[in-house]
Amino acid sequence: MTILDKRTELTTAGASLASFSRDLYARGWMPGTSGNLSVRIPVGHGETALITASGRDKGSLTEDDMVAVHAQTGDVLVPGSLKASAETSIHAAVYAATEARAVIHVHSPYATVMACRTGESDRTTSLRLERFELLKGLGLDDPSRTEIPVFRNWPQVQMIADEVDEHLGTHPDAAPGLLIADHGITTWGKDLAQARNRLECFEAICQLLVLGAMDS
Amino acid sequence: MTILDKRTELTTAGASLASFSRDLYARGWMPGTSGNLSVRIPVGHGETALITASGRDKGSLTEDDMVAVHAQTGDVLVPGSLKASAETSIHAAVYAATEARAVIHVHSPYATVMACRTGESDRTTSLRLERFELLKGLGLDDPSRTEIPVFRNWPQVQMIADEVDEHLGTHPDAAPGLLIADHGITTWGKDLAQARNRLECFEAICQLLVLGAMDS
Amino acid sequence: MTILDKRTELTTAGASLASFSRDLYARGWMPGTSGNLSVRIPVGHGETALITASGRDKGSLTEDDMVAVHAQTGDVLVPGSLKASAETSIHAAVYAATEARAVIHVHSPYATVMACRTGESDRTTSLRLERFELLKGLGLDDPSRTEIPVFRNWPQVQMIADEVDEHLGTHPDAAPGLLIADHGITTWGKDLAQARNRLECFEAICQLLVLGAMDS
Amino acid sequence: MTILDKRTELTTAGASLASFSRDLYARGWMPGTSGNLSVRIPVGHGETALITASGRDKGSLTEDDMVAVHAQTGDVLVPGSLKASAETSIHAAVYAATEARAVIHVHSPYATVMACRTGESDRTTSLRLERFELLKGLGLDDPSRTEIPVFRNWPQVQMIADEVDEHLGTHPDAAPGLLIADHGITTWGKDLAQARNRLECFEAICQLLVLGAMDS
Repeated sequence: MTILDKRTELTTAGASLASFSRDLYARGWMPGTSGNLSVRIPVGHGETALITASGRDKGSLTEDDMVAVHAQTGDVLVPGSLKASAETSIHAAVYAATEARAVIHVHSPYATVMACRTGESDRTTSLRLERFELLKGLGLDDPSRTEIPVFRNWPQVQMIADEVDEHLGTHPDAAPGLLIADHGITTWGKDLAQARNRLECFEAICQLLVLGAMDS
Repeated sequence: MTILDKRTELTTAGASLASFSRDLYARGWMPGTSGNLSVRIPVGHGETALITASGRDKGSLTEDDMVAVHAQTGDVLVPGSLKASAETSIHAAVYAATEARAVIHVHSPYATVMACRTGESDRTTSLRLERFELLKGLGLDDPSRTEIPVFRNWPQVQMIADEVDEHLGTHPDAAPGLLIADHGITTWGKDLAQARNRLECFEAICQLLVLGAMDS
Repeated sequence: MTILDKRTELTTAGASLASFSRDLYARGWMPGTSGNLSVRIPVGHGETALITASGRDKGSLTEDDMVAVHAQTGDVLVPGSLKASAETSIHAAVYAATEARAVIHVHSPYATVMACRTGESDRTTSLRLERFELLKGLGLDDPSRTEIPVFRNWPQVQMIADEVDEHLGTHPDAAPGLLIADHGITTWGKDLAQARNRLECFEAICQLLVLGAMDS
Repeated sequence: MTILDKRTELTTAGASLASFSRDLYARGWMPGTSGNLSVRIPVGHGETALITASGRDKGSLTEDDMVAVHAQTGDVLVPGSLKASAETSIHAAVYAATEARAVIHVHSPYATVMACRTGESDRTTSLRLERFELLKGLGLDDPSRTEIPVFRNWPQVQMIADEVDEHLGTHPDAAPGLLIADHGITTWGKDLAQARNRLECFEAICQLLVLGAMDS
């Protein structure tokens, strides 16, 4: 890949990140300036990830609001005026442990309710999901049930990232999503569309749970 | 009907399926790549159904994402690169038992909550609907009440289709809709607009139930 | 007013009815082909009302989908291929008893939940609304509280209309809205915008009630 | 700043107010003609605020539907045909006590439910918010928790404004938002985008509360 090819690929990826951000913002899943999206791009012997900048309105992002970082460490590649998302280290932990090419983190309402209800302050817990047909949208080996981890919402984001890293390292068949207590949901996939599709399935399943699908 | 006429009709039907899919996706009723739509087209002595392909984003379908199948068996007519929806056999069961010209299957939230609450794992159950004015939107002989079946969500879709086939065969005056436990809703009508209108009525009635309309 | 003026006014009114219908449909307040809107137009010594035709998709209405009726009787003025809304007599009852120039009937979810919860099968009841700031949007003399009637959902629409007529005739200071049990809400005002604004206030107040604003 | 500059700035600010109003109306957060927005503009030795006019549809505002008032008193600067929002004095109280350059008041559903549940008729109360990640979107010194006041919904708006003025004067580190019992929410920030972002965070937090995020 030439430098010119790489630049073109980064521009295309940036426009795609902006477009997905605007769409997810319009659904109400990124209140204020919350949430962040990234894509991983193989470059030469290394790997770059492009991630949404910190503190921007997610409803009016453009391709210029992205920051290039090292995919598996989250280190900023070219220091500039933009600051990478405060949660870059969580994206990096997912890239280090999985084959994912895109990661999405949002505060969609129903997944966040379940993250609040099932999270605890002194340990990682999990949310068991079973029976729902929509589990088939997650790419699981056995779509009849899964568990997704609910991590503590450490004020130090790196500590969340470390727990994500350890969890995914020891659970190679983990579902492509995780919750952070009182915080929100993170999903991933081979591209932004797949990460977004899986996010939709998780959010819809959590909506069913909150609306009382499993009562009685 | 000449071959050219048929080709034009299929193209028009495909564009219509794509348009209805994008609309239903935008409402949040087709999370991920879930849901499927079809239309039945009389051709010569036989009948063709055009159905959405498997695994596609429902928010960005075009007329090229459709597969032609035998309407009453679901067999693919012209093998190609596209795979017909995994739930084609359920559409075929509806076409075999009714006069429907269009079938819509989605995971709209309120109908799915009711499908979860009322479904059981060892038998077909039913959801009784009565009193609601919106029952008049279903084309029933007696709009004051109806029951819609809730089928088991067999992992083998053909088993669901067989139960649908048997149910509709023995209930010629059945309402134009059915639920599958933990899964979603399927509706039908003389065209996509009518199937969509009936879907809206079912979903609105289920929303009333979930929001506690019958609490007192 | 010349015949030409009248024709222009009817065309303009028809376009406005279509536009408001599409908007209310897009909110999910007119599932299937439900709901109906009308405007009253003074003509010479009489009064005409233009009302949405029966059985049409409310999301794709045009100015050609309207029927001219006598405002205070609901009788069709020029018999044609279009059928006036099945609930025309309720609009006529409102026009006969009030100064309203526009009437809107929809099945918005929260007002309908309250219509289900508070309605009874053997008598007219009422829903008491108090304290909510949004009551100021209803044009009441005393915006601190009001009561809106909940009529029985007679299968014979004329019987609903008769009860509406009697109620409004004996309550000259009635709030500009009414509920029909298990059915929906009807509001009115000096024009479509005001009837729609009042509908929004009623629906928002009912949403607060359903979401538990008055718990504890 | 020349008179011409000021005129240009007012026109730009008016267009921005109209645009934010239309967006918030489309979300259903300004039912009927409810809600009001303003921006503060430094001019010479004084300060002007531009605020939405009273009684207008918030979904169809233009830059011509704004009224210029004294920022810290709310007095209308140039009497004309438009009436300033009935709640101008609350905006003025915020401008007098804080550095805010923009104020937004809406009746968004979840914040209003919490305003109904926590408000009382005989004293100012407060709503405690803690743990939620979205608290980071409010610009607090300590984002782990905050309290927002819930004022009585006095029929005399000036009395609400007086209580807001007193509260903010004695709580210099107050969160950028307040509730009024049975009424709605008011937020502020350095510009409309920030006030809107904070509103989104408050509304999302209230949604989590209403949906039962803290149930266990």
